Amino acid sequence: MKTRIISGVVLLPVLIFLVVSGGIWLQVAVGFLGLVGMREFYQAFSKENRGLHTICYVFAVIYMVFIDQIINRNNYFNIFVSVFLVVLLIYTVLCHNHTNAMEGMTGFFGFFYACFLLSHVYLAREYTHGNLLIWLAFIAAFGCDTGAYFVGVSCGKHKLIPTLSPKKTIEGSIGGIATATILALIYGWWIQRTFILEDVNILLLCGLTGFFGSFLAQIGDLAASAMKRYTGIKDFGNLIPGHGGVLDRFDSVILTAPVVYYIMWFLVNN
Amino acid sequence: MKTRIISGVVLLPVLIFLVVSGGIWLQVAVGFLGLVGMREFYQAFSKENRGLHTICYVFAVIYMVFIDQIINRNNYFNIFVSVFLVVLLIYTVLCHNHTNAMEGMTGFFGFFYACFLLSHVYLAREYTHGNLLIWLAFIAAFGCDTGAYFVGVSCGKHKLIPTLSPKKTIEGSIGGIATATILALIYGWWIQRTFILEDVNILLLCGLTGFFGSFLAQIGDLAASAMKRYTGIKDFGNLIPGHGGVLDRFDSVILTAPVVYYIMWFLVNN
Repeated sequence: MKTRIISGVVLLPVLIFLVVSGGIWLQVAVGFLGLVGMREFYQAFSKENRGLHTICYVFAVIYMVFIDQIINRNNYFNIFVSVFLVVLLIYTVLCHNHTNAMEGMTGFFGFFYACFLLSHVYLAREYTHGNLLIWLAFIAAFGCDTGAYFVGVSCGKHKLIPTLSPKKTIEGSIGGIATATILALIYGWWIQRTFILEDVNILLLCGLTGFFGSFLAQIGDLAASAMKRYTGIKDFGNLIPGHGGVLDRFDSVILTAPVVYYIMWFLVNN
Repeated sequence: MKTRIISGVVLLPVLIFLVVSGGIWLQVAVGFLGLVGMREFYQAFSKENRGLHTICYVFAVIYMVFIDQIINRNNYFNIFVSVFLVVLLIYTVLCHNHTNAMEGMTGFFGFFYACFLLSHVYLAREYTHGNLLIWLAFIAAFGCDTGAYFVGVSCGKHKLIPTLSPKKTIEGSIGGIATATILALIYGWWIQRTFILEDVNILLLCGLTGFFGSFLAQIGDLAASAMKRYTGIKDFGNLIPGHGGVLDRFDSVILTAPVVYYIMWFLVNN
């Protein structure tokens, strides 16, 4: 517990600095976390296969370096996906003695789960008003966690999904969604008072991201539990002392960040 | 052999009609073949899981119905991929007793391999000059097959990858690439003589698609062999009597179509 608090206290300012500064620093940090997350994913799901995993890391680096072009220009993302698929198939053919199709699928999915989804933290930060609205991804994830904990402890009676996560309760789950939605709305109210954003309905945006984000934060948490249960591991990694690996600590943010980005993209008029 | 020839003679005109007409007919046909291909893929790789596979089919249908928007509008394809991932994760959590993460990965990859790659037949056909240039996908795939067969039979000595495909030779492989490239160039020369396309260097486009297309046609063929060898099946399916399933018959076109589409996209000036 002590280690957990110390590393939290040390790393929280770093996280805040990176998100506040945005730009290249955040891009590098998200890319690094994405690569570590992919490594954790591969170690959990597939036996050591350096060649295949190196290919996936290379594509993740290409994706993170050219992310603005890949996401914002016509056809670039489907070209990227097609080339990635083709190279994986070429590798499967040429190195068929060392690999098989299942490993190729794990490599492909690992990129999307650990790197692509997490990259929405960067995408949302760089979008219009991203400096203000990116925090909703963390409010939804950590607000939901905290609310679910306190509501669950105080009045949790009905188990949510005991085989995946024995301590979670339905009351806690609802409390988490309510807490995150209220926190997001308070944050939206503060933004509205402090800044004048005329091109977006800020309360609607905050309410939607708080609600859907906190629902998906729990899905992200439980999906990571399901994967760990399936592979028989306790934690994905140990990058952050006391918190586990990237996929343990950011299992919720992986899903709240895309929610924030796509709701911003939908509601902010450019 | 007789069945193979009869179904070839019956289905070839249908294929030609669909590609010539393009538009909605081709869209429906490619969508149908994509869904059948996905079903073949899932039957080979994962045990019966109707819920999960239904989700993947639904996303494939959404993709094929809205393919023009999803591919040609900013952010639509990454939204599609994100929502697909999120829904698979939700399913993995809610139905964790009936499924596991590996099945989710198979579902995800199966869509990209069987439906997304094949959909480039439609995308290439609908692109500028697609009515003329889409044929390059078939020239590369079937020209390579035929050339490789005759060169291999007449002077094939060195085995290519005997564990995956015992009869293929290096001489045949080179002969296939040469045949397809020459056929594509002849086709390009005919186009140049017959039509006046001022916005593209047609011989360069045909040479590139013939060369890279026929290389990838062989990769597609061998990758399908590797998958069949891994799962211990002889054919993916039996939709086309004498030819096997969609993934058996179109294993090369699955890779030549993206090559044609992206080279067109790169070289045709709009």
